[in-house]
Amino acid sequence: MSIQILFSFLFLLVASYSSYASVQDFCVADLSLSDTPSGFPCKDVKKVSVSDFVYSGLAAAGNTSNLIKAAVTPAFTAQFPGVNGLGISTARLDLAVGGVIPMHTHPGGSELLVVIQGTICAGFISTANTVYFKTLNKGDIMLFPQGLLHFQINSGKGPALAIVSFSSPVPGLQITDFALFANDLPTEIVAATTFLDPATIKKLKGVLGGTN
Amino acid sequence: MSIQILFSFLFLLVASYSSYASVQDFCVADLSLSDTPSGFPCKDVKKVSVSDFVYSGLAAAGNTSNLIKAAVTPAFTAQFPGVNGLGISTARLDLAVGGVIPMHTHPGGSELLVVIQGTICAGFISTANTVYFKTLNKGDIMLFPQGLLHFQINSGKGPALAIVSFSSPVPGLQITDFALFANDLPTEIVAATTFLDPATIKKLKGVLGGTN
Amino acid sequence: MSIQILFSFLFLLVASYSSYASVQDFCVADLSLSDTPSGFPCKDVKKVSVSDFVYSGLAAAGNTSNLIKAAVTPAFTAQFPGVNGLGISTARLDLAVGGVIPMHTHPGGSELLVVIQGTICAGFISTANTVYFKTLNKGDIMLFPQGLLHFQINSGKGPALAIVSFSSPVPGLQITDFALFANDLPTEIVAATTFLDPATIKKLKGVLGGTN
Amino acid sequence: MSIQILFSFLFLLVASYSSYASVQDFCVADLSLSDTPSGFPCKDVKKVSVSDFVYSGLAAAGNTSNLIKAAVTPAFTAQFPGVNGLGISTARLDLAVGGVIPMHTHPGGSELLVVIQGTICAGFISTANTVYFKTLNKGDIMLFPQGLLHFQINSGKGPALAIVSFSSPVPGLQITDFALFANDLPTEIVAATTFLDPATIKKLKGVLGGTN
Amino acid sequence: MSIQILFSFLFLLVASYSSYASVQDFCVADLSLSDTPSGFPCKDVKKVSVSDFVYSGLAAAGNTSNLIKAAVTPAFTAQFPGVNGLGISTARLDLAVGGVIPMHTHPGGSELLVVIQGTICAGFISTANTVYFKTLNKGDIMLFPQGLLHFQINSGKGPALAIVSFSSPVPGLQITDFALFANDLPTEIVAATTFLDPATIKKLKGVLGGTN
Amino acid sequence: MSIQILFSFLFLLVASYSSYASVQDFCVADLSLSDTPSGFPCKDVKKVSVSDFVYSGLAAAGNTSNLIKAAVTPAFTAQFPGVNGLGISTARLDLAVGGVIPMHTHPGGSELLVVIQGTICAGFISTANTVYFKTLNKGDIMLFPQGLLHFQINSGKGPALAIVSFSSPVPGLQITDFALFANDLPTEIVAATTFLDPATIKKLKGVLGGTN
Repeated sequence: MSIQILFSFLFLLVASYSSYASVQDFCVADLSLSDTPSGFPCKDVKKVSVSDFVYSGLAAAGNTSNLIKAAVTPAFTAQFPGVNGLGISTARLDLAVGGVIPMHTHPGGSELLVVIQGTICAGFISTANTVYFKTLNKGDIMLFPQGLLHFQINSGKGPALAIVSFSSPVPGLQITDFALFANDLPTEIVAATTFLDPATIKKLKGVLGGTN
Repeated sequence: MSIQILFSFLFLLVASYSSYASVQDFCVADLSLSDTPSGFPCKDVKKVSVSDFVYSGLAAAGNTSNLIKAAVTPAFTAQFPGVNGLGISTARLDLAVGGVIPMHTHPGGSELLVVIQGTICAGFISTANTVYFKTLNKGDIMLFPQGLLHFQINSGKGPALAIVSFSSPVPGLQITDFALFANDLPTEIVAATTFLDPATIKKLKGVLGGTN
Repeated sequence: MSIQILFSFLFLLVASYSSYASVQDFCVADLSLSDTPSGFPCKDVKKVSVSDFVYSGLAAAGNTSNLIKAAVTPAFTAQFPGVNGLGISTARLDLAVGGVIPMHTHPGGSELLVVIQGTICAGFISTANTVYFKTLNKGDIMLFPQGLLHFQINSGKGPALAIVSFSSPVPGLQITDFALFANDLPTEIVAATTFLDPATIKKLKGVLGGTN
Repeated sequence: MSIQILFSFLFLLVASYSSYASVQDFCVADLSLSDTPSGFPCKDVKKVSVSDFVYSGLAAAGNTSNLIKAAVTPAFTAQFPGVNGLGISTARLDLAVGGVIPMHTHPGGSELLVVIQGTICAGFISTANTVYFKTLNKGDIMLFPQGLLHFQINSGKGPALAIVSFSSPVPGLQITDFALFANDLPTEIVAATTFLDPATIKKLKGVLGGTN
Repeated sequence: MSIQILFSFLFLLVASYSSYASVQDFCVADLSLSDTPSGFPCKDVKKVSVSDFVYSGLAAAGNTSNLIKAAVTPAFTAQFPGVNGLGISTARLDLAVGGVIPMHTHPGGSELLVVIQGTICAGFISTANTVYFKTLNKGDIMLFPQGLLHFQINSGKGPALAIVSFSSPVPGLQITDFALFANDLPTEIVAATTFLDPATIKKLKGVLGGTN
Repeated sequence: MSIQILFSFLFLLVASYSSYASVQDFCVADLSLSDTPSGFPCKDVKKVSVSDFVYSGLAAAGNTSNLIKAAVTPAFTAQFPGVNGLGISTARLDLAVGGVIPMHTHPGGSELLVVIQGTICAGFISTANTVYFKTLNKGDIMLFPQGLLHFQINSGKGPALAIVSFSSPVPGLQITDFALFANDLPTEIVAATTFLDPATIKKLKGVLGGTN
């Protein structure tokens, strides 16, 4: 088959396929439009470039100069619109010596953690109230199923770094202490629903900026 | 750990998490925008309040002063935009003595019925044409799998009330008689596809407002 | 068309359709087999009867003679195998005067509550730590999106009853206090991840049967 | 790069990838095991051959020597186990002159019809009771959304053939007349839920083999 | 029951159901709006007619006067907006004598092919690198699971025609040769990632209009 | 409220919730049973321990002493049964100097890559044949949408390491060269469907162990 002839036919084929161009390979979020239950509407594909699929926001360590000595840097749809519609997202966890990621849940997705540096004691609690926790070393992976309470603690002598990924572009994050004490939920309701005494609640509300 | 120090670090943590605020916990329907296959676009979360998640439209009994002596009061996305994207919705069924919900399907979801008051004879028909029906009393639950023909009849001596829920915010409702006789589908097509005789069809079309 | 002829042809048609009988209209759980990510394997359809789709376990009030003066009676797959694969389940909440359902989440589904009797103060907390709560009266509905912390309190002068439904046959239930204090998670880990002091933790562990 | 060296490295690579072999590309149904909500368990991939993905059961015309002068030949999971888990299935419709596929629904999937031969009048009815119907010629496609009542009539002067495909390997088929009249559902219940008179019901029950 | 009375009650029932009219039976794509991860927003149902569900674009044979002697005519969302949200789409394949559909994948859906005319040698390759291929005759069906490389060749003495359907309204199409050689991907990258020599790559790039 | 009383009521509450224990928080694969379309059946929860959720198989670098100077070490369901049903999995990529991961697809999921060490030139090709590629440095993330051809090349002066995660526990891996040349697919079929000349094909088949 001569190349010239091959060329002519393939050119025709390409032409006839051109109407496929709008096929949805991806859906980079257009954050200026209203969200939907399946994610944000898509940015015009003609304006999409490779930079929509690359994110450098996790390259730098988060600031751990705080009391939990820890930082979470997310790459969810809000930070990295390329993940929209792809069923995945990521974040980096920096834990200085003694650092802790407090008890929390991700209502929208399961989490997979990879230890890049250091030693981390991590665990989750099932709905049967069974605790699954272990000390993880560099290279270890751990899973945290969707919606279950879990935590990560730097249990080593140096700083720790982990990369986590999620089964959703919007996994969400609900830190139990913040949910209970960092808002205007009345103390008597917190007391009635947690069995904590009002003094403890008011102290934590004070610390976390909660009122009522 | 002193509270003052705790405060400062947690404040930092709250600040660093503030970029999470756009996480999609819910998606109250903005009915003014175009629907999508996954549901309506979301109302701006800044305008969402608790009233978007509460609905009182099922509090009052429906009007059963009609010949089927029954009323269905739905809380689907159109009536209760809060259910958008949450995979659930509800409705109340009021059946006066002798009341009947005619043979129908929900193309978009399965149904779970709870009898709150009275006695209801309910049933569904599988695609193997097997009938599953039973008389239900107060507190009984019954399931009606997605898309299958089913019915509810007040078989007691007093009024009956049931709360039904669906596995979709837009389960849909297709009442067989209305689909066949309440529109302009030509009588000869109805006859050919149902084996009913034209006289019966025309009579029911007359009753239900159908033409042709 | 004579009925005799109609009969003969339809008989043929029924015969030819008989191979459809295995179509999956529903999938009643066979709890004796291993669960799968989509739910339990299905009971043989030949052994399925209407009783697989009807459940009377919510007819009686739960026992509220306990300190929270409340009871939750579920109809999830484990209790009501008919819901398997249908994307829905239900439960009843009984709250005596002063009764409380403590702060909890459902990791696997959203919840829709209907007040059948009494007055209930209910609320949930978003991942932005915003509280949405309201006092509900008879007939009111309230939504609790998947995975978010929420609670229900009888805020009336008489007993309260609610029927709740879920967007999953296995929504799960994680009561925060039980997850934190009713197991062997070491006190120092609870302290580090909740900011509660060890004395408070040990007291609650003692109450809830936790150790370590 | 010499071929010998290339060989050695690629051999290593193949070896290291061999553990991927169990990846789920497909899941041919093992009909001897119990179904699950997501479909049947998979046949051992070592026993799978190309014949599991090829089906000749639609090659021959169905027998239209019956009164509806029509035949439906399905290729769902029960007939063609290869479709299991793939989200698609198919069937052929043969309509002799005057042939009719009676009013029916597919509870589990949407349908796409392609006319291969002849002329077909086809339509569906929405939940708003709006009728959408049209006469289709050879090469025309028509859609029937999930769960909605629809029909096909040979409206031409010769035989008609259509290939239909479905968005599910188990779309199901519920023919309204068979669901209502071909079983033991009591005549009074049919009457109460369809507004048909008992005489008409008993006549159709007689024709279709129904009792009660 | 008199017809007049029946009329009055049913009229009331119809009226009370009218609020259901916005239920989402279907979602014809409004291609003028931005796509979303679940598909395009829906055309206003008031402007939807039967013509939105019927497509005649597959009635005529594609032009096979090209070197592959083949043509693919799709009916995806872009060509046939009615499939939006319905989980299905279709296309026709015309293969003249000697015609070939080159090695390709559909990233977004599984394919089901029905041979309408002629003889086609078709096959796919699993991720275990196993080849499944067979010569298909008129009426034969073959499956091509999502994302796997596959091909179709007219292996008969006359023209061949096939109708294919997909488990998605936007299955996508990636022809391997076009992906590798019809763009500006640098030759050294193609060489490094395919083991083809630069001369072969540059020849094919020349033929297919690729650069670099 | 005295602790003794609190204890008694909570004990009752715990007891009444014990029937929830079978709720499906997770579904560790029992690889000894047949797979299903949604994943493997679940290991008995009583036999599940934290070790089912932790995997150390990615801790050690893969062997890059091969010609591509690269290694992929997966943690999919087959290697790490804990990911079953959780919608996520992971792998590590080791690329020695000059290392390459050849052109490939993941038919079952989207990929998210994080560069842990070194410099990687990575890219993917859309179905519109547009190339999206970029040189990534330590800490950079890149996305590869489901089913699209993509590659990774060590473009730095030292070794490179990346952690990749997928939106599925069984994303699959199809390396184009292996699919085309490492099996018994006849040379004439490869030639017809790729436009490569038989000599090139036979050479690559020889290298990769293919026949015919």
